[in-house]
Amino acid sequence: MQRHMTPEEFREHGYSVIDWITRYMEEVEGMDVLPVVSPGDIGNMLPDTAPESGETFGQLLGDLDRIVMPGVTHWQSPNWFAYFPANVSGVSILAELVSAALGQQGMLWSTSPATTEIELKVLDWLVDLMDLPQGWKSSGAGGGVIQMSASDSTHTVLVVARHQNRFRASATDMVVYVSDQAHSSIEKGCTIAGIGHCVKVDVDDAFALDPAALRSLIQQHIAEGLTPIAVVSAIGTTATTAVDPVEAIADIAQEFDLWHHVDAAYAGTAMVCEEFRFHQPALERVDSYTFNPHKWMMVNFDCNVLWVADRAPLIDTMSILPAILSNTAPDVGDVVDYRDWHVPLGRRFRALKLWWVLRYFGAEGIRGLVRDHVALADSFAEWIESDDRFELFAPHPFGLVCFTHVDGDEATRALADALNATRQVAITPSVIGTTSFIRIAIGQTNTEEVHVEALKTLIDKLS
Amino acid sequence: MQRHMTPEEFREHGYSVIDWITRYMEEVEGMDVLPVVSPGDIGNMLPDTAPESGETFGQLLGDLDRIVMPGVTHWQSPNWFAYFPANVSGVSILAELVSAALGQQGMLWSTSPATTEIELKVLDWLVDLMDLPQGWKSSGAGGGVIQMSASDSTHTVLVVARHQNRFRASATDMVVYVSDQAHSSIEKGCTIAGIGHCVKVDVDDAFALDPAALRSLIQQHIAEGLTPIAVVSAIGTTATTAVDPVEAIADIAQEFDLWHHVDAAYAGTAMVCEEFRFHQPALERVDSYTFNPHKWMMVNFDCNVLWVADRAPLIDTMSILPAILSNTAPDVGDVVDYRDWHVPLGRRFRALKLWWVLRYFGAEGIRGLVRDHVALADSFAEWIESDDRFELFAPHPFGLVCFTHVDGDEATRALADALNATRQVAITPSVIGTTSFIRIAIGQTNTEEVHVEALKTLIDKLS
Repeated sequence: MQRHMTPEEFREHGYSVIDWITRYMEEVEGMDVLPVVSPGDIGNMLPDTAPESGETFGQLLGDLDRIVMPGVTHWQSPNWFAYFPANVSGVSILAELVSAALGQQGMLWSTSPATTEIELKVLDWLVDLMDLPQGWKSSGAGGGVIQMSASDSTHTVLVVARHQNRFRASATDMVVYVSDQAHSSIEKGCTIAGIGHCVKVDVDDAFALDPAALRSLIQQHIAEGLTPIAVVSAIGTTATTAVDPVEAIADIAQEFDLWHHVDAAYAGTAMVCEEFRFHQPALERVDSYTFNPHKWMMVNFDCNVLWVADRAPLIDTMSILPAILSNTAPDVGDVVDYRDWHVPLGRRFRALKLWWVLRYFGAEGIRGLVRDHVALADSFAEWIESDDRFELFAPHPFGLVCFTHVDGDEATRALADALNATRQVAITPSVIGTTSFIRIAIGQTNTEEVHVEALKTLIDKLS
Repeated sequence: MQRHMTPEEFREHGYSVIDWITRYMEEVEGMDVLPVVSPGDIGNMLPDTAPESGETFGQLLGDLDRIVMPGVTHWQSPNWFAYFPANVSGVSILAELVSAALGQQGMLWSTSPATTEIELKVLDWLVDLMDLPQGWKSSGAGGGVIQMSASDSTHTVLVVARHQNRFRASATDMVVYVSDQAHSSIEKGCTIAGIGHCVKVDVDDAFALDPAALRSLIQQHIAEGLTPIAVVSAIGTTATTAVDPVEAIADIAQEFDLWHHVDAAYAGTAMVCEEFRFHQPALERVDSYTFNPHKWMMVNFDCNVLWVADRAPLIDTMSILPAILSNTAPDVGDVVDYRDWHVPLGRRFRALKLWWVLRYFGAEGIRGLVRDHVALADSFAEWIESDDRFELFAPHPFGLVCFTHVDGDEATRALADALNATRQVAITPSVIGTTSFIRIAIGQTNTEEVHVEALKTLIDKLS
């Protein structure tokens, strides 16, 4: 009966896995990006019951090629232009490996001081790197925490806003405002938090929230006896990376005492570069901000950061203290127990991969990645504009370009389907209102000019 | 400027990391389990700002020993007896490595068919392995999903229960019942879900929920105009692994139409062995069940499984469908889009490590681990009982033994402190009511008789 993998066996199998991944890294560029698979194909290759006796590691590794790979969509191909990127890097992958091996559970400072303290410090680094308010550092009134996803963070702050207002109104009478382009996670977060109303505010021609419409809705809802509690500004909406007018929204949030959350899930990474920061004015007046290093910063999923300007209401909402979890830290100072900063109790050492990525590439490496991708997007957009068959559908402030076929929705959809049908690239078709458009997100770690050129060739051929 | 780690560099650094982990595995047994560190010690070793230029991989690896290790609590030491285990295995660590490298984001079936289909199948395997109701398989009305933690799952089902009852009562008038020994996540889940009342029910001498007390509270609350919506049974409470009377609670849940959730976070793993299954009767009448392969099944954190008997209300509560996420699966059958089964949208390929662990060890390997640990716990408990200085504090149905010093709370606390002060072991002091006791959780992957013997010697010496 197999009960252990000895350290020596681990070394041997570990080398095999490293070799397997190295080969994947070498070959992924040439692979079809999208798999040829129907529902059930992968699952049906597995037996219906777990094996009674253990199998060899060689069998597991062999089944990576036989069973897993046919069902993999290659998010890590440089020809991946779908959704937003979820890019990775070798250094992040290796940090994840170390985290898994150390098996830290950082629910309390005392259960893994390194997990908590490196997280605190590295999130402070990001405050400077992204030019966020100094008060968001751990030395200030606010602070940052790694959570699983932007959906989690948005849900968390909506719960805090609801909790803060619990003596003013019933949750079902509370209202949260977002643009009609905001990510589905906000509506979902409201539903999960039991907040009665998630109101979609009209946007302008650039798909950015219209502050006048927001103000008038708030006034109308107050007159109706509802209680506005929060507004979410997007810096980079999901559909088109539209940027809401954060400063104008901050004015309104202040006037009506709303929690103001900024969702910069994808575009937050760009803020390492000075030239994009005009998109995030007035942050010193927002209450919370979330972004995903796991989208565009080469930190493998999951790694989402939430900052709050004031950590007190967050901890007040999330903190529960049973005897078994009373902290055993020495009485020499305050410690952060991150369990009180989110829904889950347990947490792994995700700060390690963020720390390693920032150190290995340095600030200039991250900036270089962003600038290269944005330059590729700009050049791709120029090509779209210069071609009579296509039209840009929206501004392209970051690495996403949205376009349509001038022959209309059907032609756009046909082109989108044809592109994905080649399996050589992955792109995302989308719709706003009744208009179909194609999203090209340039952000995979290894995407370079040659890949965008190949995409253009493909688009040209299929149009 | 460093922007990439080439595949060849990845191979070289990967081997180094594998070597580093191999050495850690070899040496952890001899290391102090608890670190000597004060708040700030680790963080202060990091510079205040991220480096402008990239550093070498050697610098990162060197800082694992210099900065990280002094702040690590060795959850993976065989001398770890604290909290519940969060055990890992070589095969799980390597699966996490592969998941990180593939960088799959399985929000939809179509964004990673392998992620979804292997998860479906492996959770079906567990239904058989743990003798859970057949209807919880993906072929039935229910289904399983991997979430981050039991706290997440508990919160999720409480939200579903609240959502189902939203037209009957205001959330603030809803009541959820748990034993006064239940995990803090249930109270926290209620707060986060905005449920007005989380009522603690009295327990019997074995710290198990008293069904008569539950019934009388429900009747009282209904008379007061409140709306009971859910009850949580623990199979293995956090403090003492007490087992609530699931069948009697199922009767009451049925009578009053309550959502009945079973929290078997730690003890669920034991259900791979037939002899523990009498602790989970009447499961065909419960609505949901959660357990953590990341506690005792050698699957590294995070990996929590939630099953629901009926997936419809879960998906009804959690589903939001924007255009960008409309599924592009072929029209040949239904697919599961796991995004609709939890709060977050994104999800990584966690099923891989569960699959690999089950295959590498086989059912008999997992059973062997559980039986060995429980036998060690039984023998440790016998020793406690046989020694006049100590008393068992609670029954020990699984791998956790709770005991006190007969000289009273102060002696118990002094012993707990003395044990942890040696740093050679980690144990958890706890309190129920006013009684202090010591928890010894036997469950780390490599814990064997020799380690428990050493613990006994240490207890003997320090008492």
